[in-house]
Amino acid sequence: MAVDTLPSRILENTVNELSKLPGIGKRTALRFALYLLKQPSSEIDGLVTALVQLKSDIKYCKRCHCISDDDICPVCSNPKRDGTTVCVVENIQDVMAIENTQQFNGVYHVLGGVISPIDGIGINDLHIADLITRIETENVKEVILALPTTMEGDTTNFYIHRQLQKFDNVAVSTIARGIAIGDNLEYADEVTLGRSILNRVPFENVFKR
Amino acid sequence: MAVDTLPSRILENTVNELSKLPGIGKRTALRFALYLLKQPSSEIDGLVTALVQLKSDIKYCKRCHCISDDDICPVCSNPKRDGTTVCVVENIQDVMAIENTQQFNGVYHVLGGVISPIDGIGINDLHIADLITRIETENVKEVILALPTTMEGDTTNFYIHRQLQKFDNVAVSTIARGIAIGDNLEYADEVTLGRSILNRVPFENVFKR
Repeated sequence: MAVDTLPSRILENTVNELSKLPGIGKRTALRFALYLLKQPSSEIDGLVTALVQLKSDIKYCKRCHCISDDDICPVCSNPKRDGTTVCVVENIQDVMAIENTQQFNGVYHVLGGVISPIDGIGINDLHIADLITRIETENVKEVILALPTTMEGDTTNFYIHRQLQKFDNVAVSTIARGIAIGDNLEYADEVTLGRSILNRVPFENVFKR
Repeated sequence: MAVDTLPSRILENTVNELSKLPGIGKRTALRFALYLLKQPSSEIDGLVTALVQLKSDIKYCKRCHCISDDDICPVCSNPKRDGTTVCVVENIQDVMAIENTQQFNGVYHVLGGVISPIDGIGINDLHIADLITRIETENVKEVILALPTTMEGDTTNFYIHRQLQKFDNVAVSTIARGIAIGDNLEYADEVTLGRSILNRVPFENVFKR
């Protein structure tokens, strides 16, 4: 199946638009387009409506900046969640990953990225000032930094940690790094293994909640 | 990244619609949706417009049933193409594949499928009657059967061949089957290798056009 000899400009245009999706080349885009052509109109209508709604109707939670249908997201508006523990994450996918573990009952704060001068992302591009305001106005007792273990993530961790030092009653923690469950020690990288020895925990803590 | 804990019904709806595309699961669909959310409005608008146009404006060539922007496709309306040689193919992808070889200067006839009782596709679901009409009304000298080498393709080949026997002046051929260029004989399947020996061609023909 070749894409450089398409018999229709409309098809070509659709292929070009679809191939902008991440990881989708012209060939797969053509497969999508020809698949859609074979479907009944309702199928394309459903997709088009969903895409239009996605752009026009979706909101970001005014408190934690997560994706939401309303002004306040389901996590923030849930009275059963513990508002005193705030988990700071890079993006929405991280919220979903942590939610999926069903191990966290606090609330989130989505930064929208990490400090990365090379990508032109500075402190003012992230929701860091909002986080400080939240701690000043809400009854926050613990901030969990759950940013990626990259140089950018570490820089952001360090910056936020310094900003939070003025709050005496707020504990700042970071998620545990170490050998993944099910991993063999011999295949772990040296930095992770080294840190997991330095940051060893009392055995009786392992099965604690 | 988990998809069973999406914080927004609008996002969930988009993920469900996108995951209907062939080969796309919920995870990839979520990646698409979050990617689209980050893009400027013009990007989604472009995709939406392309999809709407695809369904409303695309036509099928009245002569060969290939996809087209006009009533007659670019191949059929090109005066340089040889209208006396008609290549019969299963679908539009096959037209593009053959066009891409730049070895064929005739015109096409797209059947829209092959005879397949198990999928409920019979003779009347395909553009076979149209092909007969074309041969009766146009000055066709050769019909090349380029259907897939499956049982369904062979059945369709056989049926069309029988229908064409009443035309004395029309030659019916089929594309050559054999060992693919660059393939080793030891890895070829027995049927293909067996046929390629039975249907051997004079050596001087190999480099002929």
